[in-house]
Amino acid sequence: MTVALAARRAGNLTELAKAVGGKAFACDATKRAEVQILFADVDAAFGAPDVVVYNASYRTRGPFVDLDPVDVEKALAVSAFGGFLVAQEAAKRMLPRRHGAILFTGASASVKGYAQSAPFAMGKFALRGLAQSLARELAPHGIHVGHVVVDGGIRSAQRPDPPGNSDSLLDPDAIAQSYLHLLQQQRSAWAWEIELRPWVEKF
Amino acid sequence: MTVALAARRAGNLTELAKAVGGKAFACDATKRAEVQILFADVDAAFGAPDVVVYNASYRTRGPFVDLDPVDVEKALAVSAFGGFLVAQEAAKRMLPRRHGAILFTGASASVKGYAQSAPFAMGKFALRGLAQSLARELAPHGIHVGHVVVDGGIRSAQRPDPPGNSDSLLDPDAIAQSYLHLLQQQRSAWAWEIELRPWVEKF
Amino acid sequence: MTVALAARRAGNLTELAKAVGGKAFACDATKRAEVQILFADVDAAFGAPDVVVYNASYRTRGPFVDLDPVDVEKALAVSAFGGFLVAQEAAKRMLPRRHGAILFTGASASVKGYAQSAPFAMGKFALRGLAQSLARELAPHGIHVGHVVVDGGIRSAQRPDPPGNSDSLLDPDAIAQSYLHLLQQQRSAWAWEIELRPWVEKF
Amino acid sequence: MTVALAARRAGNLTELAKAVGGKAFACDATKRAEVQILFADVDAAFGAPDVVVYNASYRTRGPFVDLDPVDVEKALAVSAFGGFLVAQEAAKRMLPRRHGAILFTGASASVKGYAQSAPFAMGKFALRGLAQSLARELAPHGIHVGHVVVDGGIRSAQRPDPPGNSDSLLDPDAIAQSYLHLLQQQRSAWAWEIELRPWVEKF
Repeated sequence: MTVALAARRAGNLTELAKAVGGKAFACDATKRAEVQILFADVDAAFGAPDVVVYNASYRTRGPFVDLDPVDVEKALAVSAFGGFLVAQEAAKRMLPRRHGAILFTGASASVKGYAQSAPFAMGKFALRGLAQSLARELAPHGIHVGHVVVDGGIRSAQRPDPPGNSDSLLDPDAIAQSYLHLLQQQRSAWAWEIELRPWVEKF
Repeated sequence: MTVALAARRAGNLTELAKAVGGKAFACDATKRAEVQILFADVDAAFGAPDVVVYNASYRTRGPFVDLDPVDVEKALAVSAFGGFLVAQEAAKRMLPRRHGAILFTGASASVKGYAQSAPFAMGKFALRGLAQSLARELAPHGIHVGHVVVDGGIRSAQRPDPPGNSDSLLDPDAIAQSYLHLLQQQRSAWAWEIELRPWVEKF
Repeated sequence: MTVALAARRAGNLTELAKAVGGKAFACDATKRAEVQILFADVDAAFGAPDVVVYNASYRTRGPFVDLDPVDVEKALAVSAFGGFLVAQEAAKRMLPRRHGAILFTGASASVKGYAQSAPFAMGKFALRGLAQSLARELAPHGIHVGHVVVDGGIRSAQRPDPPGNSDSLLDPDAIAQSYLHLLQQQRSAWAWEIELRPWVEKF
Repeated sequence: MTVALAARRAGNLTELAKAVGGKAFACDATKRAEVQILFADVDAAFGAPDVVVYNASYRTRGPFVDLDPVDVEKALAVSAFGGFLVAQEAAKRMLPRRHGAILFTGASASVKGYAQSAPFAMGKFALRGLAQSLARELAPHGIHVGHVVVDGGIRSAQRPDPPGNSDSLLDPDAIAQSYLHLLQQQRSAWAWEIELRPWVEKF
């Protein structure tokens, strides 16, 4: 598996790209032209993609009346519209081959709108609507669309499990196992959505 | 009850405004400045609103790979971002008085993403996320937020019930009865969502 | 509107029956023969019913491993099987007239299974499955099936609102307003479910 | 992995038990005493179980007014109450070790009540309520509870894919892959539910 990684600042990905033997690309997912160039570049470097994952999101929070509308537009653009642009380029390459998978990363906010967090819910609900529509439309063409609801905080070097509360944050590798499982499912038994949360997380 | 009506072209509302003894205003709900002016004008004409209803939506449909991204942006802007702008102006006026209701009009696409219709699902899912977040945030301040899922076609002069299939399209007055019921609910027993469909509609 | 009330011990209903000008009947809803007799008696007293409401439920709670299976059977019998028996007698009377409404009372546990409360979730989930199946089956025959999720505590003489927290318990009259609204909906815009909760209730 | 299999008629399992190197037991899951004996026998043969799967269900269908209440009781007993009895014996063995997994097999009817199929919805909704309650209660004790919604027909020797429609029925091995994945998930990223359907299945 060869991996192409993209972010607005490709430099942020240099280390990760090296670690996975992949290649980093610069792309603002909210700009159609940039997404088209990204996919053309990846085509040239690696060929048509088998799997495309959309993770990007933007959130802002606070009392509803204090939210800056500019941030709300950005939340919709990054969390949802970018997902559309990326999925469309992916689908264009997968449909002719009747092969491929498109995975979207959701959050608790994909299925529950929390107080003081309307913009994140708007973006993530929209992305889930996109994923569900696409699953219905593309599955019969042999393309597997999946939406993973990550319901909890994600562990990282900067954010380790709190002392005495092990595995209370989602391990990125554990999340990846479920993405991998979706990709390995036989088409007679596809899931379009899976919700992941730590064993001690309230829900 | 005095009614202020708004649309991009106020002229489209003249007749309706006359029929309900209300007043028509021009407003593009996706433009913050226009929404602010609208609310200021309504303040001046009628005082602070008791009820604000957001109906606007935009949809485009067709094979996913053929969708025009410009239309998708517009779907998010009209169906969801406009709802945010309007709700924010409404909340600013209602919170100090701890009084008021904000109602959003949803569709089948609010809870189900259909094939070939991702943009509508994106906009309507996002609006539902907004409504649910707002319900959680504003209810304890005495403001009732409601989301009505209209699951079916709406009857009109241009679109009457098909012959031999009476009441198979939602009567606008029947829909209005449920909006009115939401407004009349006592705060000890509020609904935040209600789904309406014709008796013969598949679901 | 004439009201027939039923409970295992009709004596418990004497006062209420007097207050609403109705009549109290004894019936164990989990026994088919008793339900058949109840409906026959009500037929004789008042004629075929226009509206039938099923409220009965039984719950038991505690650590899962300590639950008594006898209580679990009872929870399924009272909360769900009794609802089936009553709905079937109701439907037999309503279908030939293509007229009537069957309403079920749900709870928070109808849509969320809480820890230490599996039996209540089992009974109430099952009742909701019954209600949803019936709504799909009976609506096209002109019979309105509704399920009301009561998400919160209900106010009573024995259980008043806590001091300083007014309307934090559902007022029975407020709940009744929504049942009444369901009954008054025109068939072009029926709801099959409505969720009611106090303005200050977390959800 | 050693497998204990149980059915009302153990003879039905002889071949399967041989194929998987397991052992077949006779048990009516709706009878508490039989379930207790089953678990005691398995304890003796294999030790405490790491994984317990509950598949049993019973359905009856047809016009609602024609359903036999005896069948409805049986649907609740087999699909839901038996699941409770089995899960309780499983939990008793897993809690002291803070280790184990309990998996339940759901169906389309677990999340959607179809017309003319209320009893199956009642049983499967109830089982899902049980599974969700258990997931909330047992997960913080280190026990993984999962509910798999099998949304489609299952392929078998007796029921092969229709000609020209390959993989339109769920392959049992493909289903098993997702059960296995649930069992292999790290506890920082558990799913409690997963919905599986063939690529061409409408939903």
